Amino acid sequence: MNNIIVAQSGGPTTAINASLVGVIKGALSSGGYDKVFGSLYGISGVLNEEFIELEGLSDKELDCIYTTPSSYLGSCRYKMPSIEEDSSIYEKIFEILQRNEVTAFFYIGGNDSMDTISKLAEYGSSIGSDIRFAGVPKTIDNDLVSTDHTPGFGSAAKFIVASMLEFAHDTSVYQTPTVTLIEIMGRNAGWLTASAALARNEYSEIPQLIYLPEVPFSQDAFLDDIREVMKTTNNVVVAISEGLQDENGEYLSATTATEDKFGHSQLSGVGKLLENLVKEELGVKCRSVEINILQRCAAHMASATDLEESELLGEKAVEYAIQGKTGYMTTIVRTSNEPYEYEIETADLDGIANQVKQVPREWINSAGNDVTSEMIDYVKPLVYGEVDIEYKDGVPVYADISHLTGAACHA
Amino acid sequence: MNNIIVAQSGGPTTAINASLVGVIKGALSSGGYDKVFGSLYGISGVLNEEFIELEGLSDKELDCIYTTPSSYLGSCRYKMPSIEEDSSIYEKIFEILQRNEVTAFFYIGGNDSMDTISKLAEYGSSIGSDIRFAGVPKTIDNDLVSTDHTPGFGSAAKFIVASMLEFAHDTSVYQTPTVTLIEIMGRNAGWLTASAALARNEYSEIPQLIYLPEVPFSQDAFLDDIREVMKTTNNVVVAISEGLQDENGEYLSATTATEDKFGHSQLSGVGKLLENLVKEELGVKCRSVEINILQRCAAHMASATDLEESELLGEKAVEYAIQGKTGYMTTIVRTSNEPYEYEIETADLDGIANQVKQVPREWINSAGNDVTSEMIDYVKPLVYGEVDIEYKDGVPVYADISHLTGAACHA
Repeated sequence: MNNIIVAQSGGPTTAINASLVGVIKGALSSGGYDKVFGSLYGISGVLNEEFIELEGLSDKELDCIYTTPSSYLGSCRYKMPSIEEDSSIYEKIFEILQRNEVTAFFYIGGNDSMDTISKLAEYGSSIGSDIRFAGVPKTIDNDLVSTDHTPGFGSAAKFIVASMLEFAHDTSVYQTPTVTLIEIMGRNAGWLTASAALARNEYSEIPQLIYLPEVPFSQDAFLDDIREVMKTTNNVVVAISEGLQDENGEYLSATTATEDKFGHSQLSGVGKLLENLVKEELGVKCRSVEINILQRCAAHMASATDLEESELLGEKAVEYAIQGKTGYMTTIVRTSNEPYEYEIETADLDGIANQVKQVPREWINSAGNDVTSEMIDYVKPLVYGEVDIEYKDGVPVYADISHLTGAACHA
Repeated sequence: MNNIIVAQSGGPTTAINASLVGVIKGALSSGGYDKVFGSLYGISGVLNEEFIELEGLSDKELDCIYTTPSSYLGSCRYKMPSIEEDSSIYEKIFEILQRNEVTAFFYIGGNDSMDTISKLAEYGSSIGSDIRFAGVPKTIDNDLVSTDHTPGFGSAAKFIVASMLEFAHDTSVYQTPTVTLIEIMGRNAGWLTASAALARNEYSEIPQLIYLPEVPFSQDAFLDDIREVMKTTNNVVVAISEGLQDENGEYLSATTATEDKFGHSQLSGVGKLLENLVKEELGVKCRSVEINILQRCAAHMASATDLEESELLGEKAVEYAIQGKTGYMTTIVRTSNEPYEYEIETADLDGIANQVKQVPREWINSAGNDVTSEMIDYVKPLVYGEVDIEYKDGVPVYADISHLTGAACHA
């Protein structure tokens, strides 16, 4: 027998299941493997031997999984100890892999997941194992190094852009001066917030202002910027990153603990914080809107480009394993912006984990309140294309995840 | 000349422009009218004579307006004084209508808008004017009396249901016990929150709990309900209305003023409030998500049924005016649930304004933490059907609103 394991880890995205489908299809079409084990809840599922077999899924089921949001196999936030700290975990995992005749392990995830798979590859080499270990990138935050961009980012950006345009319509209807603050995910990198610029068109300049974590945030400059925009319009919409930091590198959202009427301590996001600032200092109506988890799970607005790339990254990961490679992550190398073209290559896992790729300072304007055309050219092709979702009785049809939620369903 | 005026008022929805298209098409196809004036910013646009002419719009432009979110003509929150209070406003409006040879006035909006058009009809009768006044209903809250449901509600419900299902996937991935609270609009009526029940399917019971403003909210019962659900699942998702009220009829969100790190007073929503309650009292991870204005402007997820009905309500409003009627609102009378069938009729404006239609108590379970099958049967057909939106470079194409935002665009 010659089996593989695939698992998913880290925060959900709308593209991580397309990569899963890529791995499954890659394994089946290669003819080189027998069973495709899906490990439930990431690496925890390996330790607990919670596997489901995926090689029997029909094309129709795979198509449905392809467009299903979040992790079909579940996820975990398990931090692997270093080999020096606790080699027994590694011994246990390799014993399980060998007993299940697994010859290749594919881990789809972000930064922490690449750390896990990198350590497994390293341990494998140290004991002379010939099991292959490969990472497939994933994160809406787009902050992984060594790849032009990450699966999940394009779809999240597309949802943010569509929402921002819809906000532009929504906020345009009254003549009263109003400021609307849209809080967007990305704690350490402003890629998603920057993408909001794509919502601008021939009749709308919204968002007029964009603030990223890459530039220290000044309250005074922020208020001045809004005052300036209000000279020419009553309707100001601002894209702000959840990860905004002050001049001392402290998160704006970090120390806003307050007490509510039950006497409970309450942490508020940066949007609420700046909403209050605008109300008090400028005396205008202000509303903050947190797009929140919708941006990472709104599969009904996924980018076709993103899902295609995500699948290909999974498929190619299998191809490289068959060629004998181990310890790599598949990557996207962009070769042209217009027409948009790219190739799938690999990078050593060594140099990827525990690094953060931020928006280059030169893609942000000098005032730090908008992005440049380079940023727009970069993100534009990544939102191309719509994905056909099946609907039943007006509700999207996604893949059955009762292997994750069985307890709830049969209660 | 024989002209009409159409205007939009109240909060934005994704269906109010379909009603506008209905009025325009109804007027043009009747052959009975010359010009179709669109009044900008509701009744304020009449007072300021801010009109745009709509009779020249092409079919392609009308199709685009049909699927465009928010009010194409802008909106206002103008409260008409009573005729006794200030008849000069009425004299001014009628002078403007007569000078512009307007013989019919159509006002698309919610409760307050029906109050405005009702007063105008009443004044018209009192002075023997033969100008017709008609209301076309609109509100995502679905709280207007005299109509089975309101335009905008079905689309908002559809977005909420799709999002809730996507949340069900998103929240299923970890094994850690988690409570997610989804805050949904509807300050005085729980229709939208109740709709979340449609997200349940063969593999998901989410949302397991639903709380509406129609039932007094008890913190203790709420915590007990969550404890009970957690006996069978780690993943609890709860739909809560923004309008939840305690036993004394006080809004839970009303008195949560707190102070942030800038020393600013801060009002928090009911979601944040209950998030803190769950964290402190149950000691589990809890996140609150406010769907916020997306539920009223996410036109990319509009209900085809909703838009069709909205258009028809506008078209029929014109037909009834031509027949000589005045002082009415067009209404939806449901004749069958399955297959879903309805007729468009009218109701006197008199009995509509300043009333609120709530979810019947018998459509809520006795514990007050879920809805019954009657509620589900009621809302189910209203989310049927998807709307084709045009996309350009991956971004939805909506109607140009530079007549509203011109200042901003040309700055």
